[in-house]
Amino acid sequence: MTNPSRKVAAALVIIGDEILSGRTVDKNLSYLANWLNEAGVQLSEVRVVADDETAIVEAVNACRASYDYVFTTGGIGPTHDDITAECIARAFGVEVVESDEALAIMTARHGGGMNEARRKMASVPLGATLIENRVSGAPGFQMENVFVLAGIPAVMQAMLESLRDRIEGATPVRSATVIVYAPESKLAADVAAVHDGHEDVSLGSYPFFRDGIGGAEIVVRSVDEAALAAAVLDLKARLEASGLRFEDLV
Amino acid sequence: MTNPSRKVAAALVIIGDEILSGRTVDKNLSYLANWLNEAGVQLSEVRVVADDETAIVEAVNACRASYDYVFTTGGIGPTHDDITAECIARAFGVEVVESDEALAIMTARHGGGMNEARRKMASVPLGATLIENRVSGAPGFQMENVFVLAGIPAVMQAMLESLRDRIEGATPVRSATVIVYAPESKLAADVAAVHDGHEDVSLGSYPFFRDGIGGAEIVVRSVDEAALAAAVLDLKARLEASGLRFEDLV
Repeated sequence: MTNPSRKVAAALVIIGDEILSGRTVDKNLSYLANWLNEAGVQLSEVRVVADDETAIVEAVNACRASYDYVFTTGGIGPTHDDITAECIARAFGVEVVESDEALAIMTARHGGGMNEARRKMASVPLGATLIENRVSGAPGFQMENVFVLAGIPAVMQAMLESLRDRIEGATPVRSATVIVYAPESKLAADVAAVHDGHEDVSLGSYPFFRDGIGGAEIVVRSVDEAALAAAVLDLKARLEASGLRFEDLV
Repeated sequence: MTNPSRKVAAALVIIGDEILSGRTVDKNLSYLANWLNEAGVQLSEVRVVADDETAIVEAVNACRASYDYVFTTGGIGPTHDDITAECIARAFGVEVVESDEALAIMTARHGGGMNEARRKMASVPLGATLIENRVSGAPGFQMENVFVLAGIPAVMQAMLESLRDRIEGATPVRSATVIVYAPESKLAADVAAVHDGHEDVSLGSYPFFRDGIGGAEIVVRSVDEAALAAAVLDLKARLEASGLRFEDLV
């Protein structure tokens, strides 16, 4: 479903000492951002917090009050540092309970191999709805507008697919990119003029240095395809008039 | 300088619609985290915010009150969407002024090529100290405990080098990693026992699936090398007793 009349915004809370220590490079942010774009939802804030109860609870409560949807990644495994379920329960002021449904999923998968650590992965906040995990079994869960996902990218991505129907987005934002082979300082005036002259369009300028050549990618974004096309035409005409070399990013 | 008696903590505020849209994958978080580890500072929180004045000001003010150091990346170029200097000024309640020193740096580099857009990059909050940029000239700046850096990784890294002497860290955290070729659920009890039995040591368990083999990397961290070594020995003895296959990450 799409809702053309308003912006739908989401936040991501990445839970993990391993990201903050620099040991692991996060891969979930950009994947979620693109997945949400397709669903007509704008990722509007990300917080990376340590495996620390107070930090997790505060981040989740701040984000769930401010955004339509909140996603968390990490901390739902079987080890002592996996504390996300307890933290989400505390954020919502409820108990953690063993889910019969999650226990059945885990038992069907592991049979006699169930142990205390695996049972821990069947514990969710009271009132949570499970999120299927086709990769490794142990489910994620949803509490109101908060979706609690695994940190391993393949598992996180599988969980996103199974919750697709629970997300109601707005009209997706369209974008077009013009690559300009000139320093940002030489194209700033043209970009600013397009920015000032077109409503419902946003422009971003992202400088690059590649193979000894400097330039900037100008990204034009809008939910309105006609407005987007008009802004891109205007931008190209101005760049042409300024004698700057450019091309479309295809 | 190092200060062995306390933890020194930092936050990073990543400013950029291009990260939140999924268009650009951030490379600065893990670089900064590792750089800070070397300096004896723990990266303790990261926020990614849009190119939006209110969002930037709120994130910077929340972080500078809570952490010893705050770093920001992005938004200090010459285009209309580069609003970091104005936002930092607002966060500190001061005006933005043109820095004679920054203007001299820019003029020396660009000479007759100075234009309004380049002049914008010489504007900093009143009271700011510049941060040298050996890559492309335009400086970053420091306001109290807040360090404002470029978003382009090569420039951000050069700026970090030139501000090294301004950071006073504690004793660096040391770590050792043991790779265990078993599901997390089978090693959780051993890891928890080591966690409970060793003070001043933290343990993280990070599951992986590689080439069809599943397992977990157990990262042991401490500022105390002897405590670290003792915890690793204990962990290996327990894994051995449990019949699990493991090796050191070298």
